[in-house]
This record gives sequence, C-alpha cells and structure tokens, in this order.
Amino acid sequence: MQQTRLDLARIRAARRVIDPLFLDTPLYRCEAPEPGLGCTVSIKLETANPVRSFKARGTEVVASRLAEKSSRAVVCASAGNLGQALAWSGQGRGLDVTVVASRFATAAKLDRIRALGARLELVDGDHELARERAAAVARYDGIRLVEDSLDIETCEGAATIGLELVDSLPSFDAVLIALGGGALATDVRHVLKACAPQVEVICVQPLGAPAMTHSWRQRRVVTTDSTDTIADGVAGRRPIPAVLDDLLQVADDAVLVKEASIIAGMRLLFDHAGLVVEPSAALGVAAILEDRDRFTGRHVVTIVCGSNVDVDTYRRWVGGTSVHRS
Amino acid sequence: MQQTRLDLARIRAARRVIDPLFLDTPLYRCEAPEPGLGCTVSIKLETANPVRSFKARGTEVVASRLAEKSSRAVVCASAGNLGQALAWSGQGRGLDVTVVASRFATAAKLDRIRALGARLELVDGDHELARERAAAVARYDGIRLVEDSLDIETCEGAATIGLELVDSLPSFDAVLIALGGGALATDVRHVLKACAPQVEVICVQPLGAPAMTHSWRQRRVVTTDSTDTIADGVAGRRPIPAVLDDLLQVADDAVLVKEASIIAGMRLLFDHAGLVVEPSAALGVAAILEDRDRFTGRHVVTIVCGSNVDVDTYRRWVGGTSVHRS
Repeated sequence: MQQTRLDLARIRAARRVIDPLFLDTPLYRCEAPEPGLGCTVSIKLETANPVRSFKARGTEVVASRLAEKSSRAVVCASAGNLGQALAWSGQGRGLDVTVVASRFATAAKLDRIRALGARLELVDGDHELARERAAAVARYDGIRLVEDSLDIETCEGAATIGLELVDSLPSFDAVLIALGGGALATDVRHVLKACAPQVEVICVQPLGAPAMTHSWRQRRVVTTDSTDTIADGVAGRRPIPAVLDDLLQVADDAVLVKEASIIAGMRLLFDHAGLVVEPSAALGVAAILEDRDRFTGRHVVTIVCGSNVDVDTYRRWVGGTSVHRS
Repeated sequence: MQQTRLDLARIRAARRVIDPLFLDTPLYRCEAPEPGLGCTVSIKLETANPVRSFKARGTEVVASRLAEKSSRAVVCASAGNLGQALAWSGQGRGLDVTVVASRFATAAKLDRIRALGARLELVDGDHELARERAAAVARYDGIRLVEDSLDIETCEGAATIGLELVDSLPSFDAVLIALGGGALATDVRHVLKACAPQVEVICVQPLGAPAMTHSWRQRRVVTTDSTDTIADGVAGRRPIPAVLDDLLQVADDAVLVKEASIIAGMRLLFDHAGLVVEPSAALGVAAILEDRDRFTGRHVVTIVCGSNVDVDTYRRWVGGTSVHRS
C-alpha cells in the first residue's frame, strides 16, 4: 500500500484517548429500505452521542493532546459539527474554545456551539472565509488552530470508525462515505485498505460542492468559486493539497449526486429507518438511488455521520406524504 | 431486598447469549432539551438495531434456549415489537415463528414481522384477544408460547439494560421507564436495586391504558374494559399476577400521563434530540413535562425503548411548526 499520512498504530492509540461515548457506535443491517435500494444495507450510526456527529472522535484526540501539553486555548473554523465537537471536548478539559463559522451556517449547530460554552465568531461569508479568519485568530492570539482533515489528530479520530467497521461486520462489499474536507473518506479507507483491502470505498459529494471530487479526478487541486448545496457539512471550495494527496492514495471512486437525491435519501432514512439525518449523512443513500445497478446484490455500509438539522427546514425536506414506501 | 423472580447471575448469563447487536446501546447526555425540561437528561437508546426496539434482548434469550433444546416452533402475541424481535431471533436459528396480533396494530410493525419471515395471524380485537389466541395456537400445535413479561427469558433480556445503566453512567438520580406488561420496569429496577439502590425508578403509563398502574397502587390485579392511547406498545388491559408481584417488590412509583404529553414528548425528542420515537418511548419525557418540579435539578435517564411508527401518523404527531424550541 502506498503511504498516506496515517499509521495504524497511531490510530489505535487515538482510540484510547477518545471518550467511550463516541466509540463502538451502532453498526446494523437495516432491511426495511432494502427493497427500494436493491442491495443489502448496513448503517454505521454516528449520531447517538452528545454532539450528534462523528466529529468528536477527532476533537477528543486534539483536546487530549492539548491538555497533555497544558495548552489553554484553541480555535477552529467549522460548518457547525466540528465546532460543537471541539466545544464539547474542550469543555471537559478546561480549554478555551473559539469557533469561527459562516453566519449562514445551520442555526441549530451555532446554537449548540454557544450552549457548549465556546466563543462563537461569525463571518459574513462562506466556510472558506471562516477558515481564513480562524487562521488569523490563531496567529493573532498565538493559539492552536485546528484544521479539520489536515491536522493528523482529526484524521486519526475519524479513522477509528474504520477500525470498528473492520472488527464488527462479518463481510461487506462497499462503504459509502460523505466527502467534504476529506478526512472521513481518507481515514476510513486507510484502515480498510490495510485490514480489508477487498472493500470498495466510494466517496460521495454533492454536485453543488464538487471541488474535492474534481480534484480527485484530475489529480490536482481544483477549486470552485461557490457552492450550492443543502449539505452544509461538506460544502468546501478549496481542497487542502495534503489531504488530496492522501485521498489519491486510497479512494476507489468519488461520485457526485444531485440535491434531489440527497433529499430523497434523507426521506428514505426517515421513512424506513426512523433516522433523522443531516444532508451530508444522506449522501451514501443518494449515491445508491442514483446508480442502483452498481450496487445490486451487494452489501453496502453507509456511515450516517451527523444529525444536526434545523428542524423546520428538515420538516420541509421530509414532510408531506410518504413517497418511498416499498 | 425482597425477592422477585429475577437473579443477577442469570441476567449476566443471559447477556452472553444475546447478539452483541442489541447490547451496549448508546447512553448519553442530551443537553439540548434540558432547558425545556429543567433537569439533566440522559438517553438510553434502544432503537439503533435491526428491530428498532429493546425487545430482541429478550427474544435472543428465548430463541437461543429453544435452539439448545432443538425446538422448532414458537408463537407469541405481540403489539408489534415483540413479534418483530422474535421473528428476527428465530430467523437466525431456524425456528418457525408465529405472531398473533391485533388487526389494529401499527401497520409498519406488522409489515416488518411479515418481512422477517414470521407467520402473522391477525385477530379482530385488541392485544388481550391476541394473547388468548396465541395461547390457543400454542396448545393446539403443541409449541412454545412466549409470554412477554411472564416468561423469565423476556425478563432477563430486558434486565440486561439495567446492567448497562449501572456500568456506564457515573451517577444518575432517577430512571423513567415505560410500563406496559411490566418486564422492562421490573427487570431494570431489579438490577438497579441490587447495584445502585439510591436510584429512583419511576414507571410511566398512559392515562388511557392504566391497568398496571392501578394494580400497582391497589396492590392487586385491576383490569380495564378497554384502552384508549396512541402508545400501542403498552396498551394492555389485564396485568399478569406474577409480574405485578415482581413490580410491587421493586418499583418506586408509577405515574400516568396524558396523550397530549406523550405527543409533546415525541415532538421534543424529534426537535431537540433528532430522535424518531414511538409513543411508548416518549412516556418518560411526558412524565417530566407533567411534573417538572419533581425532577428539577436531578439527573434523569429515560429509556428510548422503540422507534417503530407508521410514518404518516408520526408526521401528524410531530409535524407543523416547532413549538418546543427553548
């Protein structure tokens, strides 16, 4: 296997500093939606924890290492889930946490960041502007900047999902992973490539935020001027070169899906699995809906990576009468 | 401690025959709804598994013991969750499973029982009629009848939740448990009484299906002529004497809640916790909403015991605009 920045021994060590609240998350076959999808579906559920996303796996590693070094403060840019997770992990370790976010971010995520005691700074622009501002805050205050997907702790934390996939399920053929910054996809794939190389890892990104997928396909960083997607958790425009390098080493495929498929995926998971998921967490199901033939008869795992939604918006997405009954 | 029919060593042994899919379920603090409830809330989530309820803990014990004895067939009456769970546990062990249910049962539950390969027989009456019919089938066919809450395997399975509560959370003051047949409440309480006697266990039942609560209060079996509640999972009319005896030994309190509070509880868990729950699983939150003073400042665990709903009905319950934002 070619080298990414990841190392299995370090990932196993990361597991030991993560609060068990975020580990060994449910992984189960979900038969009810299968007739509509044409394949066997298992769900890895990352939402049944205090921050309702997988991001605390990474922030637990970040915060525990900072606490070891007696650091007092940390800043990150976030679309909302990383910020919540860093606030949670920092709160328990006496860290001052600053989160920079777009003022257009999901309100429920911003509310939770504040409620968890973090300082929240809003920028009048998108997530890329928040990243610039967070870097400036870090320089000005002389504090640690956490860069999701770039910082190795965030990658090692996400990679622990891969360890659990390898340990828990007897056999599966493919894993569908939301592709945003790239950490989740790269890091889970890294572990699978080492421990279960036959499993196909397919990264899924919205057509409205395709920068990393275009970069992966062209094998060079491709940026976009804007994004247009409800999947706020993966709406980046400027892939990080080091993360792209890792992704190029390990990803088997990267596909783009339509907004309508993301909504259909959210609705299917609500109707047939009883799960409230945010748009990014429905990307895997969206990919199956758009290319059923590819998955026919296969056993597919989809990582349900977050459930932080504004409830009234969510009701509009999944509301009305059921259209996906099978 | 006075004696119930349960035994800690047997409960620990039961844990070893239950598929790990159903064990070590998420237990986590859920802060978002706390301002609206006035207390610290933790959730024990029993829905992230293939049957979306806690019932498989019991049916795994039943089915594994039957398989040991080379039994081939089993029948139960069910409002829907026990039947699904028994179908699931039987399917993996080559058992022929018959489920008798009311034709008024939640359609999604009946669909899943059929999909899991069980024979489903519907009766033109309520759950008590289904119980009578299941007993008749067992006698006629000479096969094992599984009686929920009465059969010790179902109790031991449910009691494993108690072991996990004791092991996982550092401290809590009260546990709120849906009261139907009585197994969940009695068995979780049994373990807590042995291992964490300071924890108050409060059973919660709908005002529209109060037979067991009235029986507990009057210390004798009290039946009702009918039930009138959306909480189908706990809508019994004829408490089983042996189960009542156990409940009298261990329950600290039993309270009744209004239908409007159950709906408010479902809505609060949807809006603030991102959880789809069936009415029985919202009884605990309903109890807090009806008596905030009782819980002020305390740390309360509520067991979210099932999420099997008919989605269109569920949408009516939780739909519209959000009223519980805090």
